[in-house]
Amino acid sequence: MQAEVIFTGTELMIGQILNTNSQYLQQTLALWGIDLFYQVTVGDNLERLAQAITQASERAGLIIISGGLGPTEDDLSRDALAKSLGVPLVINEKALKITRRLFDERNVPMPDNNLRQALVPPGGIVLDNPIGTAPGMIFEQNEKIYVLIPGPPNEFKMMLNNEIEPFIFEKLGSERKIIKSRVIKLSGLGESTADQQLGDLLQSANPTLAPTARFSEVHLRITSKAESVEKALQMNAELEEKIRQRVGDYIFGTDDETLADVVGRQFESRRLTLATVEYLTGGVLANQLNVIKNPGNFYKAGFIIGSNNPGIENLSFSPLPGKEQAEQLADWCKKAVNPDLSIAVTGKIKETGKEKKLRGTIYIATNHNGKTRSGEFVLWGLPQDIKERAAQLTLSTLWRIGRDFGQEG
Amino acid sequence: MQAEVIFTGTELMIGQILNTNSQYLQQTLALWGIDLFYQVTVGDNLERLAQAITQASERAGLIIISGGLGPTEDDLSRDALAKSLGVPLVINEKALKITRRLFDERNVPMPDNNLRQALVPPGGIVLDNPIGTAPGMIFEQNEKIYVLIPGPPNEFKMMLNNEIEPFIFEKLGSERKIIKSRVIKLSGLGESTADQQLGDLLQSANPTLAPTARFSEVHLRITSKAESVEKALQMNAELEEKIRQRVGDYIFGTDDETLADVVGRQFESRRLTLATVEYLTGGVLANQLNVIKNPGNFYKAGFIIGSNNPGIENLSFSPLPGKEQAEQLADWCKKAVNPDLSIAVTGKIKETGKEKKLRGTIYIATNHNGKTRSGEFVLWGLPQDIKERAAQLTLSTLWRIGRDFGQEG
Repeated sequence: MQAEVIFTGTELMIGQILNTNSQYLQQTLALWGIDLFYQVTVGDNLERLAQAITQASERAGLIIISGGLGPTEDDLSRDALAKSLGVPLVINEKALKITRRLFDERNVPMPDNNLRQALVPPGGIVLDNPIGTAPGMIFEQNEKIYVLIPGPPNEFKMMLNNEIEPFIFEKLGSERKIIKSRVIKLSGLGESTADQQLGDLLQSANPTLAPTARFSEVHLRITSKAESVEKALQMNAELEEKIRQRVGDYIFGTDDETLADVVGRQFESRRLTLATVEYLTGGVLANQLNVIKNPGNFYKAGFIIGSNNPGIENLSFSPLPGKEQAEQLADWCKKAVNPDLSIAVTGKIKETGKEKKLRGTIYIATNHNGKTRSGEFVLWGLPQDIKERAAQLTLSTLWRIGRDFGQEG
Repeated sequence: MQAEVIFTGTELMIGQILNTNSQYLQQTLALWGIDLFYQVTVGDNLERLAQAITQASERAGLIIISGGLGPTEDDLSRDALAKSLGVPLVINEKALKITRRLFDERNVPMPDNNLRQALVPPGGIVLDNPIGTAPGMIFEQNEKIYVLIPGPPNEFKMMLNNEIEPFIFEKLGSERKIIKSRVIKLSGLGESTADQQLGDLLQSANPTLAPTARFSEVHLRITSKAESVEKALQMNAELEEKIRQRVGDYIFGTDDETLADVVGRQFESRRLTLATVEYLTGGVLANQLNVIKNPGNFYKAGFIIGSNNPGIENLSFSPLPGKEQAEQLADWCKKAVNPDLSIAVTGKIKETGKEKKLRGTIYIATNHNGKTRSGEFVLWGLPQDIKERAAQLTLSTLWRIGRDFGQEG
């Protein structure tokens, strides 16, 4: 099946809002195994919208029109559909119920304007909208399927998943392909090294394997297409196993897990506590450790020293960046709040060479059981990038400590 | 002038990436005073792309094609333009120089593939790309303007602003309308109160006034359309003045200034230093104070107490949330690092009522010149929202202290 998508809304045409529904719908169509060849965006104009629908009917079997289902006069999707297909619109009782519901719940009378939202061509299927006043609609004519779906992202997603997906799956029948993805996340391995190690696997057509890199993380997306969920998951698992055999040491998590999530899970399960000190990164590290899915009790405290702070006598340490100072900070932090592990990240950023590129020198030190260790790293980029990468390197260090904990005694 | 925009790229059609260029281009066209009636997205397919170009020529005078300018075989914008217009492509020396430049700088030979990037129809204007290998292009035929622009967002924006804007402005001549915006930012005033106070001003057609709310901030966007920059700026300034007369006390900044930027500026200019303690917000506050535009020296230190931490004996305070504890933390922080002002934010989040809504009770305390003050606030929402709003309330408190500093003696 081929689809064409039409987004309507003047707010989309002048860039007032970013169209995030677009990506969500594209991903959903890909998961359903439906090809999308054209996507068109038009303003709230009856003529242009109707023309876009007419043209889409000439090119695709499934035409999805998003937006323009509100109660006001610039909400024109219903009218444009009727105009393009030459069908009338009549008040639909089911649609009217949906439109009325929110007003009834709030005990306010429904303005007459909203009656427009209950207009449906005879024979149209009304789609429920539990969180808004705009019903959706499916209408079939000449073996083409027309779907009208509201624009607000929450309503859009809910209706797409709950109302439209079952209808489409039914239509597709045995034609339907299941697509399942799995993301394997690596830390401490460059993208080009990953490319080298995985070489031939990257050429595979089904499942596909697509790497993306962000700072010191590499994410490998496995995607399988099959006749059943079980088969697709099995194909994913087989490729994941091959990847684990080659680069297993660098894999920290899967799917939507972050490095901080995994660090939190490790520390929680091993009943280890942690405290952090940051100079240069200004709270990026602490913040990441505090927005994780299951915060638990592992994180005791964090200290942030202002980037231009020359030293704080009352706390008796000097934050000037260097390997020794990072170690001193880790030791001080260990004494101050007595976590099982303390970690300090410090650094400085300097312009270098003729090109005045920014070079960050980062020092990461840990104190664990009174034993201090430290490392030095060099990073390039804009200041904020260097800070974020420094925080990520620190998380990566914590992850390796959590992983190897107990093995070193 | 009317424009039609064509985005190409299979990665856009399957939802692999979110098209942020789209919004940027729409906003830019609106600022140039150019109407956009259709925006089309197509995959990397020569036939469909050429057809989209042909159709756009029938509907618009300015046709912008973004993406598909890379060196590989699925980069088809040049070929599709040639096919649609029936013109040949020849190696262009200026384009070749641009494509070669990055290879020469790195002292690596240019693969033959990249030669494709230097193909331009005779008479085409080559657009420079200082940060990539893909030159852009402007080609005119039958009084239609065709613009080819690379897809990577950095290259896209730079070329749009530096190369395409001057060309379009020259073309538009006296037709050109100048659109200028100014954002006025308020803190501590609800959107509905702002609506009430500003009432009639919100009805204005030119300049327009559009409010948006985010947590405890209200942003008012003024937009004027005029024949000249001076006139548009003057119209903005006149409306800004009216707004200041009505809600001036709540205005903390303008345009892209954040509340943290303004706090930093205030503290810097008054040579005040600051230290923060956070319980519940997990570093959100410290992080915001550290990513500001001009960090300076005002921020001495930040302390973060893990959300589930029962207390840290060595630092001799108990972080259990309450008004007194917030005051104790502010006092402790003042002693620990001796800033001019210390501020502590603490809180707890609980489910309430039958609906189990989440209610956050937030305590904010300051110590200034040994004088302690505190306040209690109630916030509703998801945990992460409550934390971010708590941090924003703290920034708002800092802003008012900075603003009134010296007035209270």
